[in-house]
Amino acid sequence: MSELSERSGVAVPSIKFYLREGLLASGEHTSPNQASYSDEHVQRLRLVRALIDVGGLSVSGVRAVLAAVDDTELPLDWAFGLAQRAIPGGVPEQEAHAGSRGHAEVQQALEHAGWQISAANPGRAMAARVIDTYERLGHERLIDTLPAYLRAAELVAEADLAAVADAPERAAMVETVVIGTVLGDSLLAGLRRMAQERASDDYFPTPPGAVPPTELECDPEEGTP
Amino acid sequence: MSELSERSGVAVPSIKFYLREGLLASGEHTSPNQASYSDEHVQRLRLVRALIDVGGLSVSGVRAVLAAVDDTELPLDWAFGLAQRAIPGGVPEQEAHAGSRGHAEVQQALEHAGWQISAANPGRAMAARVIDTYERLGHERLIDTLPAYLRAAELVAEADLAAVADAPERAAMVETVVIGTVLGDSLLAGLRRMAQERASDDYFPTPPGAVPPTELECDPEEGTP
Repeated sequence: MSELSERSGVAVPSIKFYLREGLLASGEHTSPNQASYSDEHVQRLRLVRALIDVGGLSVSGVRAVLAAVDDTELPLDWAFGLAQRAIPGGVPEQEAHAGSRGHAEVQQALEHAGWQISAANPGRAMAARVIDTYERLGHERLIDTLPAYLRAAELVAEADLAAVADAPERAAMVETVVIGTVLGDSLLAGLRRMAQERASDDYFPTPPGAVPPTELECDPEEGTP
Repeated sequence: MSELSERSGVAVPSIKFYLREGLLASGEHTSPNQASYSDEHVQRLRLVRALIDVGGLSVSGVRAVLAAVDDTELPLDWAFGLAQRAIPGGVPEQEAHAGSRGHAEVQQALEHAGWQISAANPGRAMAARVIDTYERLGHERLIDTLPAYLRAAELVAEADLAAVADAPERAAMVETVVIGTVLGDSLLAGLRRMAQERASDDYFPTPPGAVPPTELECDPEEGTP
């Protein structure tokens, strides 16, 4: 196990926890105190850590995602749904006010684009909730961004699927679905920040000679009530 | 204050907390036990709630964002930077391994697109970290999605800036920057989930007669170690 820890970069107590939680299969026992672990263990351990550390998934979320990776019968398009639901930040079903303006705006945008999307897709409530908040805050003009955001989402999903289709075999495909879905949001958010900097330079050029604020006077880690 | 609570939908103890933390200006005292609050108080209170509840900002993050809203001297393109840094999930400066493959890939993609982005933009480290994780997990093929993601980010940022430029006056512009930056990530993530459903239907049609899993067997709220 100490060798597994060294090869994967994951501490032994964490490995023991993952074994106990069923996120990692036991090694092959070679003696009462020794077990041998394969490359597959190392790979699985890295996947578990990425889902937890980078994707922010809970243990039960990781378990569900791994079940999708291992279920060779699961249609690939369902694997997307499983990965999507495991990612935190999704909106619980009951928060989806089907009659809200947000839902109507999202549905209208989908119809305009010719998309047929299931009622259960977690993205529906996520998007509707944002639109409802724009309205509640009196910033309806932000609702006009919806078509551009939809087109951007289309570009990204095309690239996601192309990467999945490019994987050599089924297990790698499902892994690509899961990793790309979980991490792609962060990639997109990061690139959006850079694109905003570029676009805001065009729209609102900084006056010459102005000195930018060197750092934000806040600690984003401070707790909220 | 009870009227303010009613009009804003925010509970009195929360209003008291925001007053104490300086997120909300005091009302005008009309008697020792009475203060009058204006429409501006209601609007500010809604903004604070949206930033905390929907944007996930900390109290100090909200404070920094409000300072940007109120600072009439702040160039608008800096307001974007302030909003970006206040959003949780950003990567601390020290985690940015400037020499990593992720940073090199991101820089190359930016140069290819002709974008000049400051070293301090928090999106740089966010994007680089995702690319590094793709590599560590042996899913380099996901790095090929970078140009499509960049183009998508460009579309979204254009729409963001158009909405800001459309605001009637400066204070509304800065509010639009802040609200759109904080909430736009969720909107995009939601639309991406729907776009993935649509694209995966095209790439991997579900076999006829297959019965979809009705619900995910996991509780995303369960804690992680």
